[in-house]
Amino acid sequence: MDTRPKAVVLLSGGLDSTTVLAIAREQGFDPYAMSFRYGQRHRVELEAAKRVAAALGVAEHVVVDIDLRAFGGSALTADIAVPHHDSVEEIDAEQVPSTYVPARNTIFLSFALAWAETLGASDIFLGVSAVDYSGYPDCRPEYLESFERMADLATRAGVEGEQRLRIHAPLIALSKAQTIQRGLELGVDYAMTHSCYDPDAEGRACGGCDSCLLRGKGFTELGLTDPALAR
Amino acid sequence: MDTRPKAVVLLSGGLDSTTVLAIAREQGFDPYAMSFRYGQRHRVELEAAKRVAAALGVAEHVVVDIDLRAFGGSALTADIAVPHHDSVEEIDAEQVPSTYVPARNTIFLSFALAWAETLGASDIFLGVSAVDYSGYPDCRPEYLESFERMADLATRAGVEGEQRLRIHAPLIALSKAQTIQRGLELGVDYAMTHSCYDPDAEGRACGGCDSCLLRGKGFTELGLTDPALAR
Repeated sequence: MDTRPKAVVLLSGGLDSTTVLAIAREQGFDPYAMSFRYGQRHRVELEAAKRVAAALGVAEHVVVDIDLRAFGGSALTADIAVPHHDSVEEIDAEQVPSTYVPARNTIFLSFALAWAETLGASDIFLGVSAVDYSGYPDCRPEYLESFERMADLATRAGVEGEQRLRIHAPLIALSKAQTIQRGLELGVDYAMTHSCYDPDAEGRACGGCDSCLLRGKGFTELGLTDPALAR
Repeated sequence: MDTRPKAVVLLSGGLDSTTVLAIAREQGFDPYAMSFRYGQRHRVELEAAKRVAAALGVAEHVVVDIDLRAFGGSALTADIAVPHHDSVEEIDAEQVPSTYVPARNTIFLSFALAWAETLGASDIFLGVSAVDYSGYPDCRPEYLESFERMADLATRAGVEGEQRLRIHAPLIALSKAQTIQRGLELGVDYAMTHSCYDPDAEGRACGGCDSCLLRGKGFTELGLTDPALAR
């Protein structure tokens, strides 16, 4: 029997969440990976999540169907053009981008909380960064702390005073380059990850969306080429 | 054009949420009703929600599909027997009942938050009561306050300092009898509502589950008979 403590890891199949899964394993957790099918146009993301879960090894991988399209309002779920830029400097980190999905992380963390409670786990990992967060309000550390407090009050644990939910965001203070460095140290093969907001029909990264530019800059800073763009 | 402020109202089609919808309308809000199809065995609940939304009048009614069965662990979603009692006194309000669904209100409120943000609404109504809450941890006022704080940090509003999310739980300090009294004053026809955890094949209430007993007691205290049991 596995004696490691269980942890729910939110896994999109992108660079960040894949690195987080590797970190959770290294920290001695038994990882339970959770992905979401949320009407996103880039279903290639879920294929990457499945590849990553199989390659890194998880106790279980669930894909939860949720329909955020009912609420509209984002380039990632509705029929709005994904913004493209020529360089990472053009991305205005002060503005909330059109790819923001309303309350997305809150919904994702709520499902993770439900699964954690069922598993008897008190640890949730997710791959947000306050450095490269591009203006998403629900990637800020004060948001994550407030979710922890809310979650403690929402569950049996809060009533019985047993355990405290911990949200681990090990990339919160890391730049993209530092994240990649950390993952490479842990043996992550980034060729199997997918971060692009706007892939072509074969699932290849576009190289020009905010996500491709931020990740490409990280590899460049390390003197490397993004293997997702080399395909 | 409707100049009333928009509000998202969580509507299960039960006695409590139906009363809350009537209260939201009375308070001058333009109600947007949201229901969930969450693998529950009693789909008759959703039929009641549709009846209620049509009868009371809402700007829009969405039914969101979510699959809580993936996480197991509750008599309302998994194949566990619903507990029955001979009287309301037998229900131990100190214990968390087996009908508790992990993090259910957190998931429901997260979807309501997403819709509210899309609509430009800053008000969410839900029908929880701290009086008759039967030990559900996520029906306590301190939980709802912590969700408000988290939500302010999760959304654009929290970044821009525009608006503050308000969660309205107008039944929080009301007994079931007081809730029914309030609804009757507002003209609610409780015959169209459905609260039973364990209805028969025709959708009739069982009269013996915790939900039926609590609601039956409320009508009895007012010298009335529950119209859902009179069918």
